[in-house]
Amino acid sequence: MKRVVLIRHGESVWNKENRFTGWTDVDLTEKGVEEAHKAGKLLKKEGFHFEKAYTSYLKRAVKTLNVVLDEMDLDWIPVEKTWRLNEKHYGMLQGLNKSETAEKYGDEQVLIWRRSYDIPPTELAKDDPRSPFMDVRYKGVDEKDLPLTEALSHTVDRILPYWNDTVVPEMKEKYNEVIIAAHGNSLRGIIKHLKGISDEDIVSLNLPTAVPYVFEFDDNMNLVKDYFLGDPEEIKKLMDAVANQAKKK
Amino acid sequence: MKRVVLIRHGESVWNKENRFTGWTDVDLTEKGVEEAHKAGKLLKKEGFHFEKAYTSYLKRAVKTLNVVLDEMDLDWIPVEKTWRLNEKHYGMLQGLNKSETAEKYGDEQVLIWRRSYDIPPTELAKDDPRSPFMDVRYKGVDEKDLPLTEALSHTVDRILPYWNDTVVPEMKEKYNEVIIAAHGNSLRGIIKHLKGISDEDIVSLNLPTAVPYVFEFDDNMNLVKDYFLGDPEEIKKLMDAVANQAKKK
Repeated sequence: MKRVVLIRHGESVWNKENRFTGWTDVDLTEKGVEEAHKAGKLLKKEGFHFEKAYTSYLKRAVKTLNVVLDEMDLDWIPVEKTWRLNEKHYGMLQGLNKSETAEKYGDEQVLIWRRSYDIPPTELAKDDPRSPFMDVRYKGVDEKDLPLTEALSHTVDRILPYWNDTVVPEMKEKYNEVIIAAHGNSLRGIIKHLKGISDEDIVSLNLPTAVPYVFEFDDNMNLVKDYFLGDPEEIKKLMDAVANQAKKK
Repeated sequence: MKRVVLIRHGESVWNKENRFTGWTDVDLTEKGVEEAHKAGKLLKKEGFHFEKAYTSYLKRAVKTLNVVLDEMDLDWIPVEKTWRLNEKHYGMLQGLNKSETAEKYGDEQVLIWRRSYDIPPTELAKDDPRSPFMDVRYKGVDEKDLPLTEALSHTVDRILPYWNDTVVPEMKEKYNEVIIAAHGNSLRGIIKHLKGISDEDIVSLNLPTAVPYVFEFDDNMNLVKDYFLGDPEEIKKLMDAVANQAKKK
């Protein structure tokens, strides 16, 4: 049996301020750090022993992972960071407050931007300070791959090559247990692929923050089963909270 | 110009308890974490922009590095971990209190064990709980390379292949600025090599904890100059404190 644990980062400063974050590199809140500690303790207690970790270029994911690995005494395992696991790029919405945006454009338009499968927000100018073309960390990425905005469909399209060409081959070759610390939408991409979820249904999957989501595979990496670790009632509450985040206050 | 910054981890729990640590995976103290924050802030203020980081398999080095990178907004850069950057293996001394050992064997014998270039402490049994043969993290390492004790000469011998075959080629090919977060003796190995320090003199080089030590090179990786970052008087005090650590209380 092989296992992959997906984990969404803990609460970030902009989650708390209810702003569209996307590729903006905002930090975890104290609560977010605590959530990561809790997840690490739970994974240790449940007997997980990761051999490799994958994460994004964004500190809220990297730091969630660092805390989890430290709780598990696994600070030493290899960690690979990739822009392909970054959050969905929110284009010109990045930095805007979600409640204000909802008041201005209406709940419906915001929900389309946040949750339609293939309609992206208006794109940034290439030289906007928020553009990945202006950020040194993406200078090694092929320009044609760099987004100025993304619909979820685009996020899925740039994540799957990483899953298929890096994670799956490495697991077939040498790892039985890995963890992927990433973001609400980048993890949706992997989950959609693994569970064959439709374009319509994936947009209403609300991943709770910092709750380990376990996927079990056979040795050929065929999915056998998947489940969240932790108290089901608490997880339900966390998922509802994420779903309500974009609604007007 | 190319630059390599060497940094010894901040104070660890066993530094504080004055015990021989070696490959034992002890954590940083609160003071050690603070030292790392201070180093990260200083490196940021001085305009460093690392493109890659190297560290050991031991959490006191990994966590020092994580804190430094976070202070510099560089959480996203690639980090490579290797057993070759581990501290010197102290054999059967690992876990013993330095003052007690000094009382029992005398200052002179302890100083030989800690600081002679080529006399190692008595080796561990292969199945000692402290042996790397009993630790999952070293299962990927060739058995002939795994130490049961080390003199500084052995530490130097296993570090130089990593410096010569990994760090130097990567810097020639693609990096201008990297950081190596490691340990008193593993860093001594690199410094000995770079500065041509004799076997006799290297044992009295006492690296202060968490003080960035900068090495500047030309494009062919020939050393141009080296210097510590920070207040010279404070650094002198820190080096003296390390030198006195093994003496009887």
